[in-house]
Amino acid sequence: MGEHGHPYSPAELELLGFVPQRLSQGEILAPFLGASLLVALAVWLISGRCGCRSSKADRLLMCWWAFTGLTHILLAGHFLFTPDLFSRENPSYFDELFKEFSKGDSRYAARDNAIVALEVVTIGFKGPASLLAVYAIASRKSYSRILQFAVCLGQLYGCLFYFVTAYLAGFNFWASPFYFWAYFVGANSSWVVVPTLIAARSWKKISAAFRAEKVKTR
Amino acid sequence: MGEHGHPYSPAELELLGFVPQRLSQGEILAPFLGASLLVALAVWLISGRCGCRSSKADRLLMCWWAFTGLTHILLAGHFLFTPDLFSRENPSYFDELFKEFSKGDSRYAARDNAIVALEVVTIGFKGPASLLAVYAIASRKSYSRILQFAVCLGQLYGCLFYFVTAYLAGFNFWASPFYFWAYFVGANSSWVVVPTLIAARSWKKISAAFRAEKVKTR
Repeated sequence: MGEHGHPYSPAELELLGFVPQRLSQGEILAPFLGASLLVALAVWLISGRCGCRSSKADRLLMCWWAFTGLTHILLAGHFLFTPDLFSRENPSYFDELFKEFSKGDSRYAARDNAIVALEVVTIGFKGPASLLAVYAIASRKSYSRILQFAVCLGQLYGCLFYFVTAYLAGFNFWASPFYFWAYFVGANSSWVVVPTLIAARSWKKISAAFRAEKVKTR
Repeated sequence: MGEHGHPYSPAELELLGFVPQRLSQGEILAPFLGASLLVALAVWLISGRCGCRSSKADRLLMCWWAFTGLTHILLAGHFLFTPDLFSRENPSYFDELFKEFSKGDSRYAARDNAIVALEVVTIGFKGPASLLAVYAIASRKSYSRILQFAVCLGQLYGCLFYFVTAYLAGFNFWASPFYFWAYFVGANSSWVVVPTLIAARSWKKISAAFRAEKVKTR
């Protein structure tokens, strides 16, 4: 804990009424990872039995979209609708999760405008659209590919914006190199790597569909 | 001109060494609109004669992509690579254009982080991708639709971010209601309306291509 009453960087960040974190790193991360795995497992099992004959690739995609959609909605929702989450007397699990994650990026604790704007877009567009993607894949909608491409692009654009604003604002928001690599780079990079892979796959499939159409109309 | 030596809002914004605007509104807007129309006209005429037998809709799209691509690259480029543009002794036309446009959003004059981050993405992705779209349409590439959709989504995401960060940061960046409606809302809304139309059209065409593919493989 720094002399300013919080563990975040930069130390001079003012957090009036900050209530210190009570749960340990393990007590915060284990339920998050456990719940995420449970969601993915449930979607995997249900998609294999629902009679929609999805391919394994499509079932994996549904797991990802269910995980990312729920994460977007629950976390962005909690952050946006609990402005006092760092000073609540009886902190909830989600309050504690944000206290832990802020060690990798104190702009969450400071409620930086760029972060709030990103979370507004996350809950307004990316979260609901991710859950819609689960439904679209399961029911083989013709808009499934373009929807997935759109959400991936939103996630990539959001990450780009997230990293560029951090760079411009001083690039000093992590409590130690461990939190820089584990949270700021590590945790966020899932939303760079997976959307890049899905977007590239969608791009190829969509281009191939138009090539086929061109050949047909010749 | 306010007592702080500049015409922008909020008045207490500090702009050290600010060199007042010399060109009038007309002298700034007329060349911009004239050059934009010239670019569009040139693309329209060339695309009608180059033997690529593009439809009128595709030729109109090429005009838009050429206009928006050049605007993105020239303006974002000037803004990013001329950090002293508000204090240069011998201001260029582009310096004056940013001085005028800042009357609708002084975050340009203040070099607000959100604006700089948006301009980084504009010059790094949206500008070059817009010009690539002109080529892709002209040479009927199979990735033409998905590329246009991607750039539109980037533009819409950028506008959303632009407006949300302005709202969060105080929503008081225009010198008068005229500049609010003409520049902040009016000028920016082109990059909401046109990308929405093109993205909706691409979405429909891509969904239709997958419907056709599904029928074929039944």
